[in-house]
Amino acid sequence: MYQPIAWKEDHILLLDQTKLPEQEVYIECRDLETVADAIRRLAVRGAPALGVVAALAVALEARIITGKTRDEFFHELQKLCDRILETRPTAVNMKWALHRVTEKLQSADTAQVKNLKKMLEQEALAIFHEDIEANQKIGIHGREIVPDQATIMTICNTGSLATAGYGTAFGVIRAAAEAGKKVLAVSCETRPLLQGSRLTAWELQKNNIPFVLITDSMAGYYMKKKGADLVIIGADRIAANGDSANKIGSYSLAILAHQHNIPFYVAAPTSTIDPDTQQGDDIPIEERKPEEITHIGNQRIAPDGVAVWNPAFDVVPFAYIAGIITEKGIIKPPYKKNIRKALGENRQETTD
Amino acid sequence: MYQPIAWKEDHILLLDQTKLPEQEVYIECRDLETVADAIRRLAVRGAPALGVVAALAVALEARIITGKTRDEFFHELQKLCDRILETRPTAVNMKWALHRVTEKLQSADTAQVKNLKKMLEQEALAIFHEDIEANQKIGIHGREIVPDQATIMTICNTGSLATAGYGTAFGVIRAAAEAGKKVLAVSCETRPLLQGSRLTAWELQKNNIPFVLITDSMAGYYMKKKGADLVIIGADRIAANGDSANKIGSYSLAILAHQHNIPFYVAAPTSTIDPDTQQGDDIPIEERKPEEITHIGNQRIAPDGVAVWNPAFDVVPFAYIAGIITEKGIIKPPYKKNIRKALGENRQETTD
Repeated sequence: MYQPIAWKEDHILLLDQTKLPEQEVYIECRDLETVADAIRRLAVRGAPALGVVAALAVALEARIITGKTRDEFFHELQKLCDRILETRPTAVNMKWALHRVTEKLQSADTAQVKNLKKMLEQEALAIFHEDIEANQKIGIHGREIVPDQATIMTICNTGSLATAGYGTAFGVIRAAAEAGKKVLAVSCETRPLLQGSRLTAWELQKNNIPFVLITDSMAGYYMKKKGADLVIIGADRIAANGDSANKIGSYSLAILAHQHNIPFYVAAPTSTIDPDTQQGDDIPIEERKPEEITHIGNQRIAPDGVAVWNPAFDVVPFAYIAGIITEKGIIKPPYKKNIRKALGENRQETTD
Repeated sequence: MYQPIAWKEDHILLLDQTKLPEQEVYIECRDLETVADAIRRLAVRGAPALGVVAALAVALEARIITGKTRDEFFHELQKLCDRILETRPTAVNMKWALHRVTEKLQSADTAQVKNLKKMLEQEALAIFHEDIEANQKIGIHGREIVPDQATIMTICNTGSLATAGYGTAFGVIRAAAEAGKKVLAVSCETRPLLQGSRLTAWELQKNNIPFVLITDSMAGYYMKKKGADLVIIGADRIAANGDSANKIGSYSLAILAHQHNIPFYVAAPTSTIDPDTQQGDDIPIEERKPEEITHIGNQRIAPDGVAVWNPAFDVVPFAYIAGIITEKGIIKPPYKKNIRKALGENRQETTD
């Protein structure tokens, strides 16, 4: 149907999400800098997608590492990782993916540089494929909480475009629809960058899922007048206590859902959970340039020189979250304990 | 500084608000239809401004009423009123202003048609000037509740552009600043039509009031991270029980303020109170065309053929409102009783 990320052996193809829904244009990335630039411009975005793309970009660029010894190789590899990591501070999936590939290579302690480069590529591709699998499992677990005839509100884009494929919160909606449940999605447009109207609306159309598009400011009144059965969002980083960073507007949505007694879920692969981050306040929140608010495309919509606050994300406190839908099942409160348990099981599995 | 509405004897000048902040262009209205069109396109908007402009437009067009008898005159006058009234259903101020001028003429039961036309013009101009006075009084009453160093959040535009001059919620912020209080305004951009970024930001700049522009989706997170002392909004219609219709997004803002223990005020002249409307559910909510959400200017921001919900207003239940700031003082709960009292005093004054 559409493949936002594709590995083409000597390059990576990325669907340029800044051009959607008007044009489906692919960016041919033959080096890490082109990928880093695409990440900065949000041509590719979404926490799980960023993890996959970061690993692929490093695997591609690592081929031209000139270091002959393992030490030299790892030194240069770290520099590549840092170049990608500095593009966006909030999503933990890049850190997670690059940590995973580096650990994998380091554990192969007899491998030579040439083999390390090959292993790196294999591990990056494994992350790619596992993310799709994880998303499908999120869909299977998540669809259980979706009643038939459900109205499900969401924000930002958490579909194929935000992941290696299938989607997280979007994947739950999709899985429920694929299982034959009648669902109505309500997509909040997601200012400033309109991922809800540009990307989620486009993906919902492509998947023939009925939906309504609203501005973010209509969410509360929609809940009151039309009603909603669930709110499901994605996450860019989940702290050890369950606090979840996600697209700006998620915090308001959680409060509005709470006030209307609508269960509020987060859907994300466990790679989005950062056990090193104790709580939401410890998550770095990226602030982006004012022009995202003062302009739409090239069109100015605010006077020259206005002061703007433009955090790209906010944090939903765990108390507002009914459950975190992961590939391992739905994590319920108490989160500290149950997140530790889910990650512990994860570690066992990967070391088995 | 800037005069959004001006009466020029044989025409009305309206600042075209759809062109702001890029251009300051005036529309020369020589007939009622040009005014009606400006209202429909939101070239002029804001409940108090609509009341003034409706009365002026009817006064202008009434000059060419050909009916010779009083009966013929009132019959044709009613048609003019209906043509203006049907442009926008939610704001009650047009209904209020046209009712007031019609009653005034009817009470002059010996006046001839020629004199009725002159009286109509005088009464329309009286409404114009009284609205400015009312706004200034709203400012005087409202500034009392503004602490020094206050951060005040607002939505939509309630300034000179939304009234005959000065402003309602904006007037309170302005009056506090003029009284020497240090204030910081937080302007929510107000999707879909961006009155907050296009108009309020422009007026705040013109008045040298410090402010920050945010997207509507940032309001909750702003309250949590930066804090706010007050939320003050305008109103398009206030029901007899205090429920207040205002720009879409106001309802969400009220819930967010409630959750953060921030007092939430409505500022409006008593002409915005409709004693015939018992409660919020009885207020007709205008739904506008989908293109307001799927496009910004000529730029498409959502795929073709998406389903959209686009209510122009929502209703803040009285329970969330700390007070209604009017030209007669701040109406506090219980609203049913105190609104009746405020309107009763009003009637006495006008019949004295």
